[in-house]
Amino acid sequence: MIDPQLTDIAKQLAELKTSAADMATATNIVWTLVCAFLVMFMQAGFALVETGLCRRKNAAHVMAMNFLVYAIGIIGFWAIGFGLQMGGVGAMATFGGDATLSNEVTITLAGKTFGLFGGSGFFLPLASYTPAVATMFIFQMVFMDTACTIPTGAMAERWKFISFVLFTLVISTVIYPIYANWVWGGGWLATLGSNFGLGHGHVDFAGSSVVHMTGGVAALVGAKMLGARIGKFNKDGSPNAIPGHNIPMALLGTFILAFGWFGFNPGSTLAATDTRIAVVAVNTMLASASGAIAAGIYVWTRYGRPDPTWLANGMLAGLVAITAPCAFVSASSALLIGAIAGVLVVLAALFVEQKLKIDDPVGAVAVHGVNGAWGILALGLFSNGTYGDGLNGVSGKVTGLLYGDSGQFFAECIGIVTNVVYVGAMTAIAFFIIGKLVGNRVSAEDELTGLDVPEMGVLAYPEDAEARLPKGMEGSPT
Amino acid sequence: MIDPQLTDIAKQLAELKTSAADMATATNIVWTLVCAFLVMFMQAGFALVETGLCRRKNAAHVMAMNFLVYAIGIIGFWAIGFGLQMGGVGAMATFGGDATLSNEVTITLAGKTFGLFGGSGFFLPLASYTPAVATMFIFQMVFMDTACTIPTGAMAERWKFISFVLFTLVISTVIYPIYANWVWGGGWLATLGSNFGLGHGHVDFAGSSVVHMTGGVAALVGAKMLGARIGKFNKDGSPNAIPGHNIPMALLGTFILAFGWFGFNPGSTLAATDTRIAVVAVNTMLASASGAIAAGIYVWTRYGRPDPTWLANGMLAGLVAITAPCAFVSASSALLIGAIAGVLVVLAALFVEQKLKIDDPVGAVAVHGVNGAWGILALGLFSNGTYGDGLNGVSGKVTGLLYGDSGQFFAECIGIVTNVVYVGAMTAIAFFIIGKLVGNRVSAEDELTGLDVPEMGVLAYPEDAEARLPKGMEGSPT
Amino acid sequence: MIDPQLTDIAKQLAELKTSAADMATATNIVWTLVCAFLVMFMQAGFALVETGLCRRKNAAHVMAMNFLVYAIGIIGFWAIGFGLQMGGVGAMATFGGDATLSNEVTITLAGKTFGLFGGSGFFLPLASYTPAVATMFIFQMVFMDTACTIPTGAMAERWKFISFVLFTLVISTVIYPIYANWVWGGGWLATLGSNFGLGHGHVDFAGSSVVHMTGGVAALVGAKMLGARIGKFNKDGSPNAIPGHNIPMALLGTFILAFGWFGFNPGSTLAATDTRIAVVAVNTMLASASGAIAAGIYVWTRYGRPDPTWLANGMLAGLVAITAPCAFVSASSALLIGAIAGVLVVLAALFVEQKLKIDDPVGAVAVHGVNGAWGILALGLFSNGTYGDGLNGVSGKVTGLLYGDSGQFFAECIGIVTNVVYVGAMTAIAFFIIGKLVGNRVSAEDELTGLDVPEMGVLAYPEDAEARLPKGMEGSPT
Repeated sequence: MIDPQLTDIAKQLAELKTSAADMATATNIVWTLVCAFLVMFMQAGFALVETGLCRRKNAAHVMAMNFLVYAIGIIGFWAIGFGLQMGGVGAMATFGGDATLSNEVTITLAGKTFGLFGGSGFFLPLASYTPAVATMFIFQMVFMDTACTIPTGAMAERWKFISFVLFTLVISTVIYPIYANWVWGGGWLATLGSNFGLGHGHVDFAGSSVVHMTGGVAALVGAKMLGARIGKFNKDGSPNAIPGHNIPMALLGTFILAFGWFGFNPGSTLAATDTRIAVVAVNTMLASASGAIAAGIYVWTRYGRPDPTWLANGMLAGLVAITAPCAFVSASSALLIGAIAGVLVVLAALFVEQKLKIDDPVGAVAVHGVNGAWGILALGLFSNGTYGDGLNGVSGKVTGLLYGDSGQFFAECIGIVTNVVYVGAMTAIAFFIIGKLVGNRVSAEDELTGLDVPEMGVLAYPEDAEARLPKGMEGSPT
Repeated sequence: MIDPQLTDIAKQLAELKTSAADMATATNIVWTLVCAFLVMFMQAGFALVETGLCRRKNAAHVMAMNFLVYAIGIIGFWAIGFGLQMGGVGAMATFGGDATLSNEVTITLAGKTFGLFGGSGFFLPLASYTPAVATMFIFQMVFMDTACTIPTGAMAERWKFISFVLFTLVISTVIYPIYANWVWGGGWLATLGSNFGLGHGHVDFAGSSVVHMTGGVAALVGAKMLGARIGKFNKDGSPNAIPGHNIPMALLGTFILAFGWFGFNPGSTLAATDTRIAVVAVNTMLASASGAIAAGIYVWTRYGRPDPTWLANGMLAGLVAITAPCAFVSASSALLIGAIAGVLVVLAALFVEQKLKIDDPVGAVAVHGVNGAWGILALGLFSNGTYGDGLNGVSGKVTGLLYGDSGQFFAECIGIVTNVVYVGAMTAIAFFIIGKLVGNRVSAEDELTGLDVPEMGVLAYPEDAEARLPKGMEGSPT
Repeated sequence: MIDPQLTDIAKQLAELKTSAADMATATNIVWTLVCAFLVMFMQAGFALVETGLCRRKNAAHVMAMNFLVYAIGIIGFWAIGFGLQMGGVGAMATFGGDATLSNEVTITLAGKTFGLFGGSGFFLPLASYTPAVATMFIFQMVFMDTACTIPTGAMAERWKFISFVLFTLVISTVIYPIYANWVWGGGWLATLGSNFGLGHGHVDFAGSSVVHMTGGVAALVGAKMLGARIGKFNKDGSPNAIPGHNIPMALLGTFILAFGWFGFNPGSTLAATDTRIAVVAVNTMLASASGAIAAGIYVWTRYGRPDPTWLANGMLAGLVAITAPCAFVSASSALLIGAIAGVLVVLAALFVEQKLKIDDPVGAVAVHGVNGAWGILALGLFSNGTYGDGLNGVSGKVTGLLYGDSGQFFAECIGIVTNVVYVGAMTAIAFFIIGKLVGNRVSAEDELTGLDVPEMGVLAYPEDAEARLPKGMEGSPT
C-alpha cells in the first residue's frame, strides 16, 4: 500500500461528497424557486376570482387592489416583515446553509423560552444576501402576499384605495410576519411540543392558519368594520344577491389558483430531496376535486342548480383545508377533508351573510377563514403518523387525534384561537387608526357610480354601453 | 494495506452511489411533478378555448363543464381508473421504484400473453401511497383529464349538465384507462412488438392516440348522437357559421395549452435524467408553429383572411400531431408533421361539418381526433431510429416506415383502428344508457334561451344588456 | 495491497464522477427548459396587455399579431436566426457540451478579432440536434420571440397584417440574431473587455439591450414610420387619450409577464448549479414592485389617481430595467433601479407622445426601449463586484462605475449606442422595403371600421351591440 494513493482516494471521495451536497442544494433551490413562482402566479388567480365576482363598475378598482397588493407587500416584507418572521430561523440547511439568521427575540417564563419575533435580516443586507437566504425570502414572500390579498375580496366595491394601501403595509410588515414567526420562524406556537409535550407543537404544513386564516380573519374584521355595500341588505335585514359580472373570469382565476397551489403545498417541504412532495401534490389535487364536487352536489341538491361560483369556491375551500394537513394524511383522508370543506364553505358563507350580516362579496371569510381553521383541525384529527419525524424539534411522526395523539390536536386548537384573537385584534386596531387618518370607505356617491373612475381614474371597460348608463341606474344591484 | 481502510472506502463508495441514485430519483420526481402541474393548467386552456368559441348565452355552462370535468375525472381516476390503467405497470424505476403495482389481468391466446387491464392500485391504498406511485398517479391523472375535457367542446351549447357529469365518470373510470393500459400500462397494444415483431409495438410517446384520439373519437360519437345545435344547419343541409363570442379568450386559451404542452410532451420521458427532453421540447415547439402557419396560409389563400380561430386550431393541431412522434423525429420532420396537421385540421373540420353534417362548435374532432390519428401515423412514418432503445421491451430504436420499419407503421395503424372501434363503441353505449337514464340534450327552449340560467342558475355576464335581450332574439346564430 | 482492488476503486470513483456530471447536466437542462417554458408563456402576457390597451374594434387583430408572432419567429429562428446568433458559441458546457457550434464569422482589425455573426446550426441539422443544442435553441428562441412581439404593441390598430408578417420574418431571422450574437454569441460587443480592457465587455445578463431595447427601438422606428392613429393627435398637435378597452385583461397580462420573467432572468445563468439564480429571482421581484409603486406614486401625485395602466407599465418598466443588472446588484440597488424605471416610464411615454408626436398605443417604446437602456446603464453603475468572474473571458467580477470600474460603464454605453443605430437603421430599411412591396398601413376606412373584419375576417366580440354600431360612430376615440 502506497500512502499517496489512499490520500488521493480520500480526496476524491471528499470532493464527490461536496459535489453531491452542492447538487442537492442546487436542486432544492431550483424546486423551491419554481414553487415560489407558481405561488406568485396565484396573485393573478386571486385578481380574476375577485374581479369576476364583483360588478363591472368596480372592476378596475378590484383588479388594481389585487395588483398593487403584490408590490406593496414585497416592499413591506423586504423592509420589515421578513426580518420579523424569519430573523431567528437559523441556517437554512436544505438551501446550503450559507448564511444564518439567528436572532429570535424571546421571553422566558417559568423556565421555558418562547419566541416572539425575529430580529435580523431587515432590508436584506448584502452580507445576508446569499442563495439560501434569497430562496427562503422569495418563498416566504409569496406566501405573505397571498395572505395580504385575501381581504381585498371581502372588502371589495367600497374600500377606499388609500386605506387599502396603508392596511396592506401593516399586514405585510407586522400582522402576518409575527404570526408566521410563531408557527414557521421558531416562535412559541412551534415550540408547544418541545415546551409542553403537545405533539409537534402547532403544525401548519403550508399555511391553512398562517396564510389563509390570517387573510380570512382580517377579511372578516375588515368587512365588518367597513359595513355592507349599499343595496346588499334590505331594511328587514334580508340579503340581496349581487352577481359577479364575469363568471368565466372567476373560473379562470380558480384554475390559476389551483395551478399555483401545486407550488404552495408541495413547495413547503423546502426540499426536492424530500420526495414526500409527490404525496403532497396528490393530496392537494384530491381535496381540490372533492371540495368542488361536494359543494356542487350540495348546492345542486339545495338550490336546484350547480352554480359555478360554488363549484369554484368549493374547490378553493378544499385547497385551503388541505393546505395544513397535506403532508400528513392518506389519500382518502384528503378526499374527506376536501369534501367537508366543500359543504362547509357554503354553510359558512350563508352564516356570514344571513346571521352575521356581514357583506363579503367573494366569500373570502368562508373560503379562507373558516376553511383555514378546518384545515388546521383536520391536521390535528387525520394525521396518520407517516411523516414529520423531528418536526419542530420533536422526534416521532405527526399524529392526529383519530390516530391517538390528543396533544397534537390541542396544539392545533391553540393556534386557531391565537390566530383569531391576534389577527382580529391587530386588524381592528389597524383599521381604526387608518380610518381616523384617511377614512376606510368611499363616499356613497362614488360607490353608486362605481369606484373605477373616482378612485382609479379609468373605466375597466370604457366601450361598454352599460358602463356609461345614465346616473340613477348605476347603483342597481347588478 | 490495512483492511479497515478498504472497508471504509467501500462503505463511502456505497453511500455515494445510494445518494446519487436518490438524487436522480428526486430530480425525476421534481421534473415529472412540474410537468404534471403544467398539464393540469391545460384545463384552463381548454376552458378558455371552448368558452371563447361558443356563444355568450352558454358561456357559464361551457366554462363549468370544463371546470368540473377536472374534479370529476380526479375522483373517477382515483377510485377506479388508475388501477385499471396502471395496476400492472410494475416498479416505477425512474421514481425510485419504492412500490410495485404488478397485477395485470391478461389472457393467453396461441401461447402469447395479452394484457387487458390493470388490477391493483384502486383507491390509492396507504401501502401503495409512496412517492413513486403518487408521482405516476398525478402525471397519468392530468393526461386522463385532458382526454375527458375534449368532448365538452364538441358537445357544447346543448349537452345536459347531468349527462355530462355521468359521461365524465364513465370515460375517466373505464373508457380512457383501459385504452391507456393497452398502450402505456403494459397491455396488448404495447406488446405487439414483443409478441408479433411489429416494431416496438404500438408506440405513442405522449398521447396522440391515448389522449387526443380518445377524446376526439368520443367527441365525434357524442356530437353525432346529440345532434346539431338549433340553427346550425339549414333545411337544405348547408351549415351556418356560429361565431364564438370572445376571440381573445380563445387565443389566450390556446397559448395556455401550448404552454402546458411543454409539460405534456417533455414530461413523458418520466425522467429528467433522460436529456432527450430537450429535443422533445423543441420538436413540440416547432410543430406548434408550423401548424399555426400552415393553417393560416391555407385559410388566407382560400378565404382571403387569416381567421384567428384557424391560427389557434392550426397550432393545436400541430401540437396534437407531434405528441406521439415528438421524441423520435428530426427537427425538420417535426415542422413537416405540424404543417400537414395545420392544413388537415381545416379540411377535417369542413368534412365533419359539410359531409358528416356533425356540429362540432370548437373543432374538437378535427383537432384531437383526426390529428391524433395523424400524429400516430407520423410516428410510424418519420421515426428516424435515434431514440427509444428498449421501449416496450424491444431492443433497437424506434424506426418508421420511411426509415425502413414497416412493422412499426403497422403497429401504429392497429392502434388507430383499435381506438376508433373501442372508444367509439364504448362511447355510443355509454351515451345510449345515459340518455335513457337522464336524457343527453337540453330542451329546445333552454337551448334557445341559452343554457346558463336553466342549467347553471347564473348568467356568465349578467350586466351585459344583450344577455337580457327579449325572447325571440336569443336563438339567433350570433 | 492488491492492485485489482485499487483498480476497482478507481473505476468506481470515475463512474461516480461521470454520474455526478450527468446529474448536473440533467438538472441544468431541466431548469433551463422550465425557464424557457415560462418565457414562452410571456407571449400570452404580451397579447393580453396589448389587446387590453387597444380598442375593442381591433382586439382580434392585436391578439392575432401577438399570437402569430410566436409561430413566425420560431420558423425564422430555426431556419436562419439561431445559426446567426449562436453558430459560433462553442460547446455548451452547462448542458453537457455534447455538440459544438464553432463557426463565428470574424474580421480582424489592428490585430484584434471581432465576431460579426455565427455561421453554423442553420435549420437545426440532425448532427447538431443534441440535448445541449436543443436546450440552448429553445431558450434563445423564446427570448427572440419576446423581442419580436414588442413592436406589435407600438404599431397596433393600424399595422397591415401582411406587413407585420414580413417584418417579423426580418427581425427574427436577421435583426435580432445579429445583435444577440454581438452580446451573447461571442461577437464584438462581448469582447470589448478582452480586446480593449473595458470591464467584461458589454454585459447584458438577461436582455435589457438584446431583447428589450431591440424590441423598443424597432417599435419606435416602426411607429414613427407608420404614423399616428386617426384621431390620436389634434390639428394643433395635442394628443387625445384613447383608452384601452379592457383593463382587467391588461393587468392579467402584466401578471403573466411578471410570472414569466422569473424564467427570463433567473434562467439566464443557463445553469441550476449556479445558485445565484435565487438572488436573481429576488432582485427581479423587488424591482418589479418598486417600479409599480414608483409609477403609482408619481401618477397619483401628478394626476390625482393611481391609474392602473401606469401601475402595470411601472411594473413592466422595473422588470425591463432589472433584466440586465439582476445578477450583479444588491437588493437595495434592485429596488432603486426599479423605482427609477417606474418614474422614467411615465416621463418617457409623455415625451414620446407630446414631444416626438409618436403614437405608441401601449407604451412599448417607454417600457422596453427607454427602460432597456436604463437597465444597461444601471448595470454599468450599480454592479457591486460580487458576481460574474470570468464572464466574457475576463477574470474578476463585474463592477460598475459607482464601485470603481468606468470601463464597464463605457462598454455598456457602447452597447446602447450600437443597438439604437443598428436596430434603428435595420428596422427603417426593412419597413421601407416592406412598405414598397405590400404597404405598411391599413386604409383609413379599415382603420375607422376597426381592423378585425377587414384584416382578420372576424369580430373579436361579435355579440357586443357596440361592435355593430352604425358607421360613423366607429371611428370615435373610445
